[in-house]
Formats: sequence, C-alpha cells, structure tokens
Amino acid sequence: MPSQIEKRDEFYLARCIQLALKGKGYVSPNPMVGCVIVKDNKIIGEGYHAKYGEEHAEVNAIKNATESVEGATLYVNLEPCVHYGKTPPCVDLIIESKIKKVVIGTLDPNPLVNGKGVEKLKKAGIEVKVGVFEEESKKLNEAFFKYITQKIPFVALKIAQTIDGKIADIEGNSKWITCEQSLHFVHQLRSEYDAVLIGSRTARLDNPNLTVRLVEGRNPYRVILDSALSLPLELNVFSDKFTDKTIVFTSVNSLKAKKEKIEKLNSLGIEVLTAKSMRRKLDLKDVLEKLAQKGITSVLVEGGGKIFTEFIKQKLADKVFVFIAPKILGKGIQSISDVGIKSIRDIITLKEISVQSFGDDVLITGYL
Amino acid sequence: MPSQIEKRDEFYLARCIQLALKGKGYVSPNPMVGCVIVKDNKIIGEGYHAKYGEEHAEVNAIKNATESVEGATLYVNLEPCVHYGKTPPCVDLIIESKIKKVVIGTLDPNPLVNGKGVEKLKKAGIEVKVGVFEEESKKLNEAFFKYITQKIPFVALKIAQTIDGKIADIEGNSKWITCEQSLHFVHQLRSEYDAVLIGSRTARLDNPNLTVRLVEGRNPYRVILDSALSLPLELNVFSDKFTDKTIVFTSVNSLKAKKEKIEKLNSLGIEVLTAKSMRRKLDLKDVLEKLAQKGITSVLVEGGGKIFTEFIKQKLADKVFVFIAPKILGKGIQSISDVGIKSIRDIITLKEISVQSFGDDVLITGYL
Repeated sequence: MPSQIEKRDEFYLARCIQLALKGKGYVSPNPMVGCVIVKDNKIIGEGYHAKYGEEHAEVNAIKNATESVEGATLYVNLEPCVHYGKTPPCVDLIIESKIKKVVIGTLDPNPLVNGKGVEKLKKAGIEVKVGVFEEESKKLNEAFFKYITQKIPFVALKIAQTIDGKIADIEGNSKWITCEQSLHFVHQLRSEYDAVLIGSRTARLDNPNLTVRLVEGRNPYRVILDSALSLPLELNVFSDKFTDKTIVFTSVNSLKAKKEKIEKLNSLGIEVLTAKSMRRKLDLKDVLEKLAQKGITSVLVEGGGKIFTEFIKQKLADKVFVFIAPKILGKGIQSISDVGIKSIRDIITLKEISVQSFGDDVLITGYL
Repeated sequence: MPSQIEKRDEFYLARCIQLALKGKGYVSPNPMVGCVIVKDNKIIGEGYHAKYGEEHAEVNAIKNATESVEGATLYVNLEPCVHYGKTPPCVDLIIESKIKKVVIGTLDPNPLVNGKGVEKLKKAGIEVKVGVFEEESKKLNEAFFKYITQKIPFVALKIAQTIDGKIADIEGNSKWITCEQSLHFVHQLRSEYDAVLIGSRTARLDNPNLTVRLVEGRNPYRVILDSALSLPLELNVFSDKFTDKTIVFTSVNSLKAKKEKIEKLNSLGIEVLTAKSMRRKLDLKDVLEKLAQKGITSVLVEGGGKIFTEFIKQKLADKVFVFIAPKILGKGIQSISDVGIKSIRDIITLKEISVQSFGDDVLITGYL
C-alpha cells in the first residue's frame, strides 16, 4: 500500500507528465518535461517545455508561480539540467529560488546531466527524491532515452494490412486497405515522430505526401531510401511545398554517378545523404545513425514490406503499430516476410500489447 | 420511437432468444427455440427446445405454465411447427390451449412450415404478429437457416495466426501461436458447431483431438479430408475413445484401392465417405452436401492454410473467426493465400465485424 505521501507525490508527478505531453512533437531532440511547484499541498506554479530552444519546464513553472516559491516542493518528470545548453542550467535557478524539496520522475540519461543534477541540488541542501512514476517517466520519453543512450533514433513500424497480413495487392496497390479513422491516427503519429521513412518502391507506387493533414500538428521529416537514386522528381515528396523536410538517402555509387540529379534535388531544397550499401540495399543502421546526427530522435517507418522485414530482421525496430482491416486479399505483398525465423520456437513475441479500434480496423501496438 | 407495445414485445422476444440459447449444441439439426407465455403483463410460463427429439419450446412453456394459459399471449422466436416430425405439431397444441395471441420472431424457412403455421393459427381465430426482433431471430439460427434453404451446412473458418498472417512455421509447427484463453473459446465453438473439419496435412502435423475439453459441452463430429487415405491409424482422431464421431472423406479411387484400410477404419467405428475429387483435391461443395445429408448443419473449419484458402476461393465460407496473436513469424505458412483476387478493387471486406480480446490475442469475427 502506498503511503499518503507516496500517493501525493504520484499525483503531482502524473500532472507533470500531463503537462510534458503538451510539448509532444515540438521539443525534439529535447525530452518532454513538465513541472509543478507545490506549497502547503497546493499547486502554485506549473510549466512545461513547449518548444525546442525555448525555456525548460522548471523555468516556466517558477516564472508562472502565483506566490513565492521559497520553501516549496518542485515536481518534475526528468532530472533538472546542470549544463549550459540553449538555456542556462535549471538546477542553478532552483537553488537560487530557495526551493526546499525536489521530486524527480527519473534521472536524465544524458551523461552531461545523469545524476549530476541531483548531486548539485543535494549539495545546496535541497531534499531530493528520485523515482516517482519512474517507468512512466521513461516511457514518456522513450525516443529521447534511446537516442541519448544508443545514438540512434527510436524506430516504430506503422503497418496497415489486411487480416491475412497483406499490405498491397500483387501489383503493389494499397489504397485503401485501412479506414479513414485509422488514417487520422497515422497523421497523429506523424506529428509526434521526428521523421517518417519509406523505401523507394513505396515512394514510387503510393506517391505519398507523408505530411500531417487530418490533424493539427507539425510535419515530420520525410526520409526516402533510394539507393539507385532513380525516383522521378514528380513525386509529391520532391515537388510539394515541404521539400525542405525531405531527405533522400542513396548509395555512394549513385552519389558519384548522378551528380546532375543531386544538384536538381538540392536546388529544390532536398537534402541528399549517403549511407553504406550492399547489393543495392542501403545499410539501415548507418541511415539511422546519420539521422541521429541530424538530431532526429524518432522515426516512423511506413513501408513497404521489404523495409518492415529488414528493420525487424536487423533488430532495429523498437515498436510496431499494426492496423488490421477486416479484409482479405489472399495473394499480395506480405507485411512481414523472412525475418530469419526458422522454427516456431524462435517466434517473436511482442510486449506491452495494447489494442484499439478505429472504425472496423483494429490497431495492435507492441514492443519488439 | 417504438411504442410501449413494441417495447414489451421486444422484451419478451429477447427472453425467448435467451431461453433458446440454452439448447445450443444439443438441438441440431433442429433450430434453437425459446418460448414465453404472458398474461396480464406477467410471464406465466417459459420453455425451450433442450435436445433433439425432445419436446419443442412451445410444449414446454405451456406445460410449465403456473396458471391457465387461456387468453394468454405466446412469444416464440420461430414460427410454431404445423407438421408431424419427432413430436406432434405445436400449432395444434396452441389452438387447443386457447392462447389468444402469438408473437413470432421470424417465419420458419422450412418449406414444410413456412407461413403455414401462421395461417393455421389465424384460421383458428388467433391474433398473430410476425417479425419482432426478426434479424436477431434469424441470426440466432443462422446455421439452421442456411442448412434448410441451401441444403449445405453453415461454414465458419477458425484461424489462429500471428500478426503477420502465419499459422505455422516453415516446417508446419503451429503449437502454440495463440494463448490458453483463445483455446478455451475454440473449445466453446467446437461445442456449438455440429462438426469440425481439417485437411490431411493438419491432421498429420498437429495430430489434434478436436474434442471439447476446456469447457463443458458435447463433442462435435470430426471430419478429416484425406483424398489419398494415407493418414496413419495412430492419429488421435482414429485411436481415441471418440472414433464414432470421426468421419473421413476420401476419393473414389482411394475407396477402391484401399479396401483393407477402410475396413480397419470401419472396425474402429469410423465412417468413411467419398466425395468427388480433382487432382487429388476433394470437392468441398460435395463434402458439405454429404455432411448436410447426415444432418450436420454447421461446420467449423480448423485448417490448414490451403483448406482456408479453398473455402474462401470457392465462396463456401460464411463466417471467419481470426485469432491474432501479437507475434511475428515472418516466413511460414500463410493463413490465407491465393483466393483469386488480382486487384485491390476486388478485396473481400468482412461484414458485421466484432472484436474481442483473449489474453494478449485479438479475435476478429466477421461474415463473408
């Protein structure tokens, strides 16, 4: 049984997470952070990190306080920063403000901060408690945690398939297997992930925009894998008004052989990057590392089947969103094919499953 | 807005359906029927058809009445019978009992009854209302309706697959993709369907019992398709204590060539029937017609992938139960392969979808 104090701490930490989520889609590569300041069991200030480059949650909460924060308790889902980034260290402000106690969801995985924030607060005589709603605090910033610790983005696969596991007919046509409500949720996901990624076959056959249209939110980067650099310039991702958000990955060979095309793409505002390749297939790990170097912390992979299969086979996917439409195609392109499993003993079991309905579609979400 | 009378009629009809369901699994090839008798807005008698060969619902309701049914209203989900079957016609008893009004869910599709029951009641001066909860009354006896009107059983496919649509690994191993809770529900289904059916590959690889063990209920017939009559006698369906419930279908050629094996099977209490065949594949329509001739009104098809595919391709399946485990196999045996669809325009969209969770598995049910 949690004590009264533990329950109260969890209550305020939950509020921090709620506030933090308001920054979803806008703070990357920073983590989402929310902060509340409590005095005499009353919230006297709230704040969150709203946009990359702007004030941190703690600064906003202190600024928004309706009375003096001296002697108050500050709640925050992530350890306050101790280093100079885009803004001065929050720890210094907390100390200056004479906050009495700090309750933290989880330590910052960033080695520039990790534990150092807590240490400095304690040295200043502030009481510190770490680990309230720790799992929830980590889950909230799962992309940030992976990006910081492994230096590659968090990767989710978004698969839209029939009940029999087909994402397109034999010709590659996939419009539309899933329903409008599912599509809405996909646009929501796009607004939350830093980038979406597709293979050249999907780019050519579906000619998607990969933008956020059905919900409010910012557009993600659009990453197109085109090892042969053979995609036509007429595609939406090369010709709409968001070309500054398009990144093309190609092989070193193509980079040398297709200088004119690259110049053309660059003139349209499109960035062309190279990744290692083997037998015309780009090295996905290298692609992810290069995206991380650009500050991209999360990638939503939108197809096609070969790309999904490779991400799973190479253990580069963290999460899957599988939209299942109650339809049957029979023959067609499989969502996932040979991932190297030979026996049922080696079957991959997804973890932390959740199930949602969108119209007649079912969305199964899980972790790899 | 339904009137007070309509609401009251629906209330009692719903009770009839509830009572009727108590006979599920035991009345086939008869329909499930429930009956309530109402006097002064009070139920004075209830009954249902509990077992094939025993009294009909109306007889039981009248017998169970706690006071005289003279002048009462009788509610029943299916038109009362007018012909001599295993029991005398219910219509005669209703007339003799001086029931004043009869409210019926739906007409009996059986040409021996259809409309004739209503006609005879009316001729006797009884007020008759037909079509209260008509859809629900038909759905309740969907197997019976198909069996009577088309002379083949109602067919449901039960598919247990991974999220990527695989029912087994490349070697054919499928134990266990879905979870214990799903298996419970499968046993429930077996107790409700007259027969389960599998192909020879599934019989050989899985060696299933196809009996009802995890829930209370009666065992279904076990129909094994074995055109070459090559399955070993050691299989569970040939050697357990329920062999009188096993039916083997084979080709005419095998019937001639394998007399000794057939004698052996017969001596074990197993029935061997023939069906038309082409290129070692049994004609499924012929199999179904022969099952109908044996009084089997519903068949649950339990695999494998080729059988599922053929049933869909030949438009012989009415319903699907797809259990989806949140697992990935990649390469393996597809639940459904080429059903003849070439373009996404011809995609099969399931109707009347329902979604249920069993542990981490999702069950999607729909009609073809």
